[in-house]
Amino acid sequence: MSAWVLPDHIADVLPSEARHIEELRRGLLDTARCYGYELVMPPLLEHLESLLTGTGEALGLQTFKLVDQLSGRSLGLRADTTPQVARIDAHLLNRKGVTRLCYCGPVVHTRPDRPHATREPLQFGAEIYGHAGLEADLEATLLALDCLRVANVQDASVDLADVRIVRSLLAGVAVDAPLLQAIHAALATKDSGELAFLARDFPVASREGLLALLQLYGDDGVLVEAEKALKRTDGVREVLLNLKWLASRLEGVRVSFDLADLRGYAYYSGARFAIYAPGASDALVRGGRYDEVGAVFGRNRPAAGFSLDIKQVVSVVSPRALKAAIRAPWGDSGDVHAAIAALRSRGETVVCVLPGHESEVDEFHCDRELVSVSGQWVVQAIEATDN
Amino acid sequence: MSAWVLPDHIADVLPSEARHIEELRRGLLDTARCYGYELVMPPLLEHLESLLTGTGEALGLQTFKLVDQLSGRSLGLRADTTPQVARIDAHLLNRKGVTRLCYCGPVVHTRPDRPHATREPLQFGAEIYGHAGLEADLEATLLALDCLRVANVQDASVDLADVRIVRSLLAGVAVDAPLLQAIHAALATKDSGELAFLARDFPVASREGLLALLQLYGDDGVLVEAEKALKRTDGVREVLLNLKWLASRLEGVRVSFDLADLRGYAYYSGARFAIYAPGASDALVRGGRYDEVGAVFGRNRPAAGFSLDIKQVVSVVSPRALKAAIRAPWGDSGDVHAAIAALRSRGETVVCVLPGHESEVDEFHCDRELVSVSGQWVVQAIEATDN
Repeated sequence: MSAWVLPDHIADVLPSEARHIEELRRGLLDTARCYGYELVMPPLLEHLESLLTGTGEALGLQTFKLVDQLSGRSLGLRADTTPQVARIDAHLLNRKGVTRLCYCGPVVHTRPDRPHATREPLQFGAEIYGHAGLEADLEATLLALDCLRVANVQDASVDLADVRIVRSLLAGVAVDAPLLQAIHAALATKDSGELAFLARDFPVASREGLLALLQLYGDDGVLVEAEKALKRTDGVREVLLNLKWLASRLEGVRVSFDLADLRGYAYYSGARFAIYAPGASDALVRGGRYDEVGAVFGRNRPAAGFSLDIKQVVSVVSPRALKAAIRAPWGDSGDVHAAIAALRSRGETVVCVLPGHESEVDEFHCDRELVSVSGQWVVQAIEATDN
Repeated sequence: MSAWVLPDHIADVLPSEARHIEELRRGLLDTARCYGYELVMPPLLEHLESLLTGTGEALGLQTFKLVDQLSGRSLGLRADTTPQVARIDAHLLNRKGVTRLCYCGPVVHTRPDRPHATREPLQFGAEIYGHAGLEADLEATLLALDCLRVANVQDASVDLADVRIVRSLLAGVAVDAPLLQAIHAALATKDSGELAFLARDFPVASREGLLALLQLYGDDGVLVEAEKALKRTDGVREVLLNLKWLASRLEGVRVSFDLADLRGYAYYSGARFAIYAPGASDALVRGGRYDEVGAVFGRNRPAAGFSLDIKQVVSVVSPRALKAAIRAPWGDSGDVHAAIAALRSRGETVVCVLPGHESEVDEFHCDRELVSVSGQWVVQAIEATDN
């Protein structure tokens, strides 16, 4: 095989896309900072048990494993940064009050998440710890929406769900892991026949509630329907009020609900949101409340947040134009060096043409050049040519 | 073992250091862009043979290996980005003229490079392809010095060397790999007894030249000495003229030479530079000419460049002060939201105090607060307290 063939679902990012990713990366980190989220950088490698504790089997299958020569122990290449940030909040910072953290870096998956997904997403995310109230859920959602605005994503819409509804419906019902998985699959594919079969021995309220969920998706009429259909189940009413409160604070955005959506059931502990946009085949942002995430690190405190893949976001928005550059001669005199340094210190891109390469096409688009006029170095427009 | 214990030589980067790293990262990428270097982002994982071809054994030992579930093939976690960028130049861009590329991302090492080094450096580097002349070497060195200036590194000094001198001295001498390694070790430790023993059967000019190298370090007097001591060896004179030319163009920087320094011998093909600064136990930047680096990808063209570890640079310079933030109430009304959004759009950090957390100490240093005065939201200075 050729030495330059990359593994499937792994790709180089070439200049025009790389520039776009870098601009977006900065915009997202600046937006999070403006909300008071402090940047942390967890490592790519950790002991496997630290990386996977409490996160569920799905992440284990997604995680590359390798051996540490120094210790002989198993390491994992992170497939998700959220558990690492929870570890930092719980153990390293160990603050009493509200802590807001954000991060941005690559994660690596053994298999692609979706048919055309990369196995090396550039994950950006933000987490807020220490506040159990809905305000933290709301702040995370609003920050996520602001991030997509910064990315120039148009017509974003928010989809709300809550894992506590299914938990409430199954409360007190004996459900083992394979059955739970089958129920999740039936809810995901909205397969009422299968669901009725799986729930055939459940108490009536549970069975009928689960079947009702299959119809409970759409606009805010869903919450009214749900209140009627699920009124016999404890705890559901409060969850529905939570979702209604959150939706009412998301101004200027289309909000929908899908109460059968259980993605991340092992991970989330309350309200969940996903943000969609035209042109994206899957949600651009996923987030919600996951109060249990720090428990294995000795500190089970409230947590809400979200993450997104910058590479995915970049793929659905148009890049900004690159600022044109200035072409300069390769000079061996102090005055041309000073002229070039002055332009660069003002943020201009100045490309020096190396000796013998004068007739090459510029890789950067140069619309001006530095020329000597009566002993002075001045910037002049380049006449448009057929190049 | 506790779930939060990280592997040796692997660490979390906490907020104050992370902010510094992020600022420096931006400064370095902007500096490279101002010189016309285009950003690329090669993947963390590649097929092992692609990652290691032509780079020498040292990089192979530094590289973590893992198995690709999709193909069953061996993958490597990159320990150096330079060979990847050469692959991009050779195969993906395949341009005829000069190409300038830069990159910034984590690399991972199986073992630390130095006693207290991280195994996860954040590597930044720049490469210029397609120009065989010394101007490319010079541009790479000047860009590296500018990068350290941006990082606030004081009193940087450049050390020049050239692998062609030892190559010239050994030209035509039968030297197998173990002997070559022993010679390198003797040169590195400046062990003249060992070197004389290893070279005992070499032609006189080779043996005496090698022994002379042990004294050939220091300021530019070294070049004069070298010209005398090595005059019987073909090619050395030109190399010394190259080094003299380079040194003469590095204005305002202390330049020294160490002609016995062979670090990266398998990698470099010409002049080499290292940049040192007070407080750093090892060079902050290493670079030079490596014309062979693209050969295995089917395109053996001239190349020069350098790389540095941003984490190492950050460890030797003082961080810039964080801009103070504004504390704001958690409001449920449109006008406070608008006031907060306006402040954030001007780049201010506005931290909303969540209900019930009013008496907590701010994690961000807040020197102002948003308060309502006669129905208007205004920013006021916070009185200094004992906190």
